[in-house]
Amino acid sequence: MENRATHPSGNPSAAMLVIGDEILSGRTRDSNMHYLAGELTRHGIRLMEVRVVADDHDTIVSAVNALRAGYDHLFTSGGIGPTHDDITAEAIAAAFGVDISQRADALALLAAHYDRAGLEFNEARRRMARIPDGAALIDNPVSTAPGFSIGNVHVMAGVPNIFQAMVASVLPTLTGGAPLLSQSLRVNRGEGEVAGPFGQLAAEFPDLSMGSYPFIQNGAHGTNLVIRGIDAGQIDTAMTRLAALFG
Amino acid sequence: MENRATHPSGNPSAAMLVIGDEILSGRTRDSNMHYLAGELTRHGIRLMEVRVVADDHDTIVSAVNALRAGYDHLFTSGGIGPTHDDITAEAIAAAFGVDISQRADALALLAAHYDRAGLEFNEARRRMARIPDGAALIDNPVSTAPGFSIGNVHVMAGVPNIFQAMVASVLPTLTGGAPLLSQSLRVNRGEGEVAGPFGQLAAEFPDLSMGSYPFIQNGAHGTNLVIRGIDAGQIDTAMTRLAALFG
Repeated sequence: MENRATHPSGNPSAAMLVIGDEILSGRTRDSNMHYLAGELTRHGIRLMEVRVVADDHDTIVSAVNALRAGYDHLFTSGGIGPTHDDITAEAIAAAFGVDISQRADALALLAAHYDRAGLEFNEARRRMARIPDGAALIDNPVSTAPGFSIGNVHVMAGVPNIFQAMVASVLPTLTGGAPLLSQSLRVNRGEGEVAGPFGQLAAEFPDLSMGSYPFIQNGAHGTNLVIRGIDAGQIDTAMTRLAALFG
Repeated sequence: MENRATHPSGNPSAAMLVIGDEILSGRTRDSNMHYLAGELTRHGIRLMEVRVVADDHDTIVSAVNALRAGYDHLFTSGGIGPTHDDITAEAIAAAFGVDISQRADALALLAAHYDRAGLEFNEARRRMARIPDGAALIDNPVSTAPGFSIGNVHVMAGVPNIFQAMVASVLPTLTGGAPLLSQSLRVNRGEGEVAGPFGQLAAEFPDLSMGSYPFIQNGAHGTNLVIRGIDAGQIDTAMTRLAALFG
């Protein structure tokens, strides 16, 4: 764990692991990555890498071990439902070398939920109570079946509204840093026209990150110039310079 | 290169590397992954892993070398424009240990393009002619600045309509396998209700891949059950069984 990436800002670093054949086959368009990226940025945690892998035990174990060692936090989405292809909980237990079982606290939550709903608490639904030893449950206000945190790994559902609810349960428990701030300027010039002076400006502000994002609208080229950092005053100064160059 | 992942189907395998701070900060929602996933599936190439990394030289080099060794093909998006944060071409050259320069063929394409447009062919725009030694250009019918293929790595722009045009240029040059076929059944039952019998059916058809994707509509739980494979007859047989179970 000594070689974890640190972000130049000193903020905690994070990675995400998206688990699911349906993303890789093109059936489903992932939306959890974009959601988590925005939430972490606001919370002052820097998302530095995302991986998407298939529903394969060994692949998940390898990715979890690489990413949990490389970053301060790892967030996973997908594979904790009741069906045969939901294998994330077992893979996490294997990655940590701990046992996994249908745990009493999770069983109690689920039993009460299905009792209220008048639905049978069958074997498939009991699978959702499989929690690795030593993990803490993550609250799921949408559909009860919990996620869990173990070590620096936070394991959440893939269904977007449940994923989002679980992120809301977990994030307040994590120490963030200064939020990443950004300002942008939209210019009606192609990227190739602004690149030279913009690059020179970026070199003058090494603590800020500057990016340019070209677009085409009604056949005309334009560029969004974005300045990011944690010091609002420095961003203001750079934006004033930027506006003088291209405003 | 001996340890490349092979998909159980025997089809060629692929990985994708999405390069860009703007995806990880949540500013931009990536759409290229979903597009490429669908195109590869149709072409009979199995997308088995995606990574998203920041605009950092060493990070890009490491990811490129890991993924090009691990899969038959690697597709990258982002970082080949004219600005200071466009560093993908240099990172690819470093990953392959080859030189990179503004190459005559790419310069000629770009010079003619900016001449036609009546725009100055300035130093920033010349940056888009940087091509690693030994690479073959990928045609860009949208905005001329080319992508390139070197070894089994295909380097493309991040702007979605340009990325899509480059995928259309590259894919016909690659040998695919049998396309992955799929059929699905939408059932008005929760995943926990169908999981048991669905898992038993999946176990009877080891050559097919079966997945279930829950949804909530108007407050009611439902599940899409999907069967994938390359043998249409076998999928039909399994779908008939599925319909008998839940239809």
